[in-house]
Order: sequence, then C-alpha cells, then structure tokens
Amino acid sequence: MTASPLEKFQQHLSNLPGINQATADRALARDAVLTKPAGALGKLEELAVWMSGWQGQHPPTYAHPQVIVFAGNHGVCDQGVSAFPQEVTAQMVANFNAGGAAINQLAIAFDAYFSVKALDLGRPTADFSQGPAMTENECANAMETGWNAVDKNTDILVVGEMGIGNTTVAAALSAALFGGTGVDWAGPGTGISTTGVQKKAAVIDAGIARHRAILGDPLKVLQHLGGREIAAMAGAILAARHKTIPVLLDGYVACSAAAVLYKANPEALDHCVAAHVSAEPGHINLLRNLKKEALLSLGMRLGEGSGAALALGIIKGAVATHNGMASFADAGVSGEASA
Amino acid sequence: MTASPLEKFQQHLSNLPGINQATADRALARDAVLTKPAGALGKLEELAVWMSGWQGQHPPTYAHPQVIVFAGNHGVCDQGVSAFPQEVTAQMVANFNAGGAAINQLAIAFDAYFSVKALDLGRPTADFSQGPAMTENECANAMETGWNAVDKNTDILVVGEMGIGNTTVAAALSAALFGGTGVDWAGPGTGISTTGVQKKAAVIDAGIARHRAILGDPLKVLQHLGGREIAAMAGAILAARHKTIPVLLDGYVACSAAAVLYKANPEALDHCVAAHVSAEPGHINLLRNLKKEALLSLGMRLGEGSGAALALGIIKGAVATHNGMASFADAGVSGEASA
Repeated sequence: MTASPLEKFQQHLSNLPGINQATADRALARDAVLTKPAGALGKLEELAVWMSGWQGQHPPTYAHPQVIVFAGNHGVCDQGVSAFPQEVTAQMVANFNAGGAAINQLAIAFDAYFSVKALDLGRPTADFSQGPAMTENECANAMETGWNAVDKNTDILVVGEMGIGNTTVAAALSAALFGGTGVDWAGPGTGISTTGVQKKAAVIDAGIARHRAILGDPLKVLQHLGGREIAAMAGAILAARHKTIPVLLDGYVACSAAAVLYKANPEALDHCVAAHVSAEPGHINLLRNLKKEALLSLGMRLGEGSGAALALGIIKGAVATHNGMASFADAGVSGEASA
Repeated sequence: MTASPLEKFQQHLSNLPGINQATADRALARDAVLTKPAGALGKLEELAVWMSGWQGQHPPTYAHPQVIVFAGNHGVCDQGVSAFPQEVTAQMVANFNAGGAAINQLAIAFDAYFSVKALDLGRPTADFSQGPAMTENECANAMETGWNAVDKNTDILVVGEMGIGNTTVAAALSAALFGGTGVDWAGPGTGISTTGVQKKAAVIDAGIARHRAILGDPLKVLQHLGGREIAAMAGAILAARHKTIPVLLDGYVACSAAAVLYKANPEALDHCVAAHVSAEPGHINLLRNLKKEALLSLGMRLGEGSGAALALGIIKGAVATHNGMASFADAGVSGEASA
C-alpha cells in the first residue's frame, strides 16, 4: 500500500527540532550587560533572544530576511463570498512581479528578499461546500512548493498570500480546527456587507457539515477545506522550523495555515511570533487559540504578508540593539545601585 | 519692564500653524486609488496622510528623519529617587557620542540622523521639592537649545532624553498639569522598589505643594518642576510645528514635555503622533490626558527616544507604501464590485 502523499509532512510534524538553548542563553547573557536598565527594551530583548535561539547562532543576524507571497484561487468563490472578482488574484500576482503592491514596498523598506509563487491560478480548488477543495496530491504538492521556496540562508521568514475568497477559507479552517460555526469566524474580508458576511458564514457551515468525518485530522482539514496558497504557507512555516529559521506570522489567512500545523503538534509554532493582529475579527480569536500575542495592532487587513513585513522593522531593531550596544563595562557606565 | 524670557515661547504657542489641508487631501486622493481594498493598510494610510499634511507636501518624504537626545541632571536626585547614580547621565552621553547606546542602533536601523545635546550636566537643576528647578532664563535657554537643534530639512522628528531622576520630574509635571498626586503618577523608572516609588510620590507631592501658586501657567510649571532636557524637548517639539515637521512622541518623559505645550494650547500637539506606550505606568494615563493613542506597545521603558525611533520603521513603511504602490488603473487590477 502506497503511503499518503501527506504522510511525509505528518512525519516532519512529528520530528520537530527544538530551540537551541545554548545560543538563546548566550543572547540572554549578553542582554544582561548591555547599557540599559534590565528589561528596559521590553519585547525587543525577548525577540533578540528568540532570534538567537531559533537561528541556532549568537549573535543573531538580520542580513537575509525573506518574504514569500503564495497565490491561489478558490472554488468557493462560486458562492459569491468576495467583493472582488477572482481574476484579481492573477492581476495582483502581475502587480507583485512588477513591484507595485504594498508588500513590494515593505520588503524593500526592511531589506527583505521578495518572491511570489502563483499556484495553478487557472485551475481553482474545488468549492469546499460541495466536496474536498483539493486531492491529497494537490495539497501535498502545494505544501512541497512552500517548503522548497524557503531559502536555507534566510534569517527571518515572512509568508504572505493573495487569493480572492481566502478569508472564507481561513474562517472555515479555523472553525474546523477549533470549533464554533461560520458566524464565529467569518468577517468582511476585503469589504463585503453584513448580508455578505452571513452568506459567507452559511457557506462555511455547509463545508464543516460536509467534511465532518475528517475534522480530527489537521492535514486532511487543510486538504478538504483549505487552498493551495494556504497549504504552501503551511509547508513553508514547517520548512523554516527544519531549516532553523524563525518566522513572523502575518494575519488571518497566514495564521489559518499555521493553525493546521499547531493542531497537528502544539509545539509546531514555537519558532513563530505573531507579527500583528488584523482588523479581520476572526484573527483575534485565532491568535487566542494559537496562544500567541501580536507585536503590532495597526488595523491592517491586506494580507500579502504586509503586517508581518512591517514587523520586520521591529526584528531589525531588536537585532540591531542586541548586537550593536556597548556593555556597561565597555562604555564605562556605572551600574544600578544594589537594592 | 522687560518681557519674561519665556514670553517668546508663549507667543509661538499662540501662533501655531495648522495642517496643510491641500497636501493632506492630495494624499487622501492618492490613497483611494492604490492597489488594495479601501482602508486595508489601516494606520499606515492615516500616517501617510498625516505626514503629507504636516510636511505640507505631497508626496510625503522619509529622506531625512532626525533623532535628537537631550540630557540633563536633576537636583531632585538628592532625595534618592533613582536606582542609578547621577554621573550615569554624563557617562551615557559619552556612550551616545561613541555610538554604543540603544538609540544609536535604532537611528541607524531606520536611516535617521542622530545627535545628542548635553545641557549643563555639571550644574544640575535645583531640587524642585525645595524651590524652583530653574530660573526663567535657564528654562528659556534650554527651550532655545531644543528649538535650534531641529534641522529645518528634517521630515520626521524624534526627541528623546537622558537624565537620571527624570521620571520623577515627568511625574511631577504630569501631576501639576493634569491633577492627582504623586502616587497617581510615580512608577519604578529604571527599577526602584515599592518603597522607592512611595518616596518618589512623597517628593512629588512636596513639589506640587510648594509650587501651588504657579500651577495654572504651563510654562511656569515647566520652569519650576521640569528640567533642562525636558524644556529642550518642549522647545524642539514646538520648533517642529513652526518648521512644518511632524513629530513622533516617545515615552513618559518626552510626553511630559509635550504635555506642557498641550496645556498651553490644546492644538499644540496636532502635528505629533504617540509612538509607543511605555511600561512606566504613568504614561498610559498621560497619553489619555493628551488624547493620543500609541502606535506601539512593546513594554519598552528606556527613554533616549528609543520607542519613537523604533516607530520610525512604521512611518518608513507608511511613506513607502503610499509613494511606491501602483494604482488600480496603472496595474490593470479590477476594482471592487459595486455593492
């Protein structure tokens, strides 16, 4: 009997490398002697230690940040769940390639290497409210595309997405993985009306009902209710773990990909930090379920990895202060009076 | 009769230039046609419009960000209000000049021009719990130093500070300007104990009681309870307004300088955005009084302008997306379906 094509990723999920505690400890030790009151850089100090531990090196580097946007189309758009027509996915891929999208500017602003991978845009997934969105092979191939897109020299990874209709998919995955119904997870996405959100919720409920038998298996949930760009993001986030690369999680759709990994192994996102909390209401709830607290809350809801790319600036600042500051001894600065 | 040396700044506060509505409108018009759903970049869109309006130009620029750190020493340190000895102020100024502090790394990370101005460190202000911290001349001279430090070519300004004991001064100014007592405004600063915070609160209460007669005049509050680096920051923030430069406000101490201007004229901070909310507890309360919402909340409490310098990354991203993105028409991307 042939193994399921998803079996390989299940194995990667069962064999997760941990943090490098030795390099994390070296970062902690350096942090303690830098010219500032203990803890005064707050989250920046934690992020420098996190970078060092998950990169498995000290000092941590911010020399080759990578931003990858995956694009896919969704059969569920047949149900009228989005404010934009489906051809916008391919048009935006052209915009990414021409350098005209928000993510292009943010990648440049924070020195990141940018690429976009379009996954079979001319052949949308099947409508999940009518049947499985993908075959096992399609899902595994998309995960493989994501896995292979991660450059092993990357020192911090952002994965983003473009796919008209994919906040409906993110909401369906969230409901399938964490319970609740469509109304608990559906939001306005790119800007549909209240009636539109109700329709979206009903479509999600139909999908959950149809695929009830496989809801206990996270990778099957991805296959049945997900999409190619979401499977690719899941593959990329998992690849980053195996390639010792920390990850900044973007918004609702990116986190729905991460959620599949989390449900398969609750340690699967230990190398990830939530970059921002989106204005899409389901994202707050999803972050709570993933036990992640976001770095930024700026009312963004664009996707493309834009929130995470903006948070690259925070990481850049964390690494710059950790690596570049003088110690009390080097600078000849007197320490804190003993209490 | 000679005019008070503070009179000039009072006049600057009474003659505030407003936003350039024409350039703000041009930014709004461009924002509306960029390749993203309306509002999907959240706060970044507002910041691009804010930059354009207060710079009085469209497109807005992020070409010459300026970070200035002002340093001063405080007589109130005689009361034992800080965990660090007072000589650390001068030692940290040397560290800034050598490039070894957190703010140096953050300024480099976000392309900012950095300078430090030490104000009479060998001659601390008087202890405000015993008498006026400064003479009118000393206060006006410090404001003038701040005013002159702002380069007219700056496109976004960060002012920061270094001054052992100055969270006590910030708390005293906050209490004097907005009411309440020492316990409402005092916090651990660089890291004093609960007993230390109680002592700090008592010193603040003594200062407020001693200077009750001048509490209705914000510039006199600055003179009697403030410090040179705080007066310099107030001068710089006011100068920025007159030189059409938007400002990112740093933490508790920088906001206490801004608060003096706000109490003198409630429109005086319209060109300012609160960059971050500090871990120093009084800062939340102070921002509420200034009617400002912070961009970042990362548990920072270092001063030096570090929180605001980190937020330069957000401004950089806002300007980059606004200026660099393609329009729907240019990119050939279909718009939103009409509802």
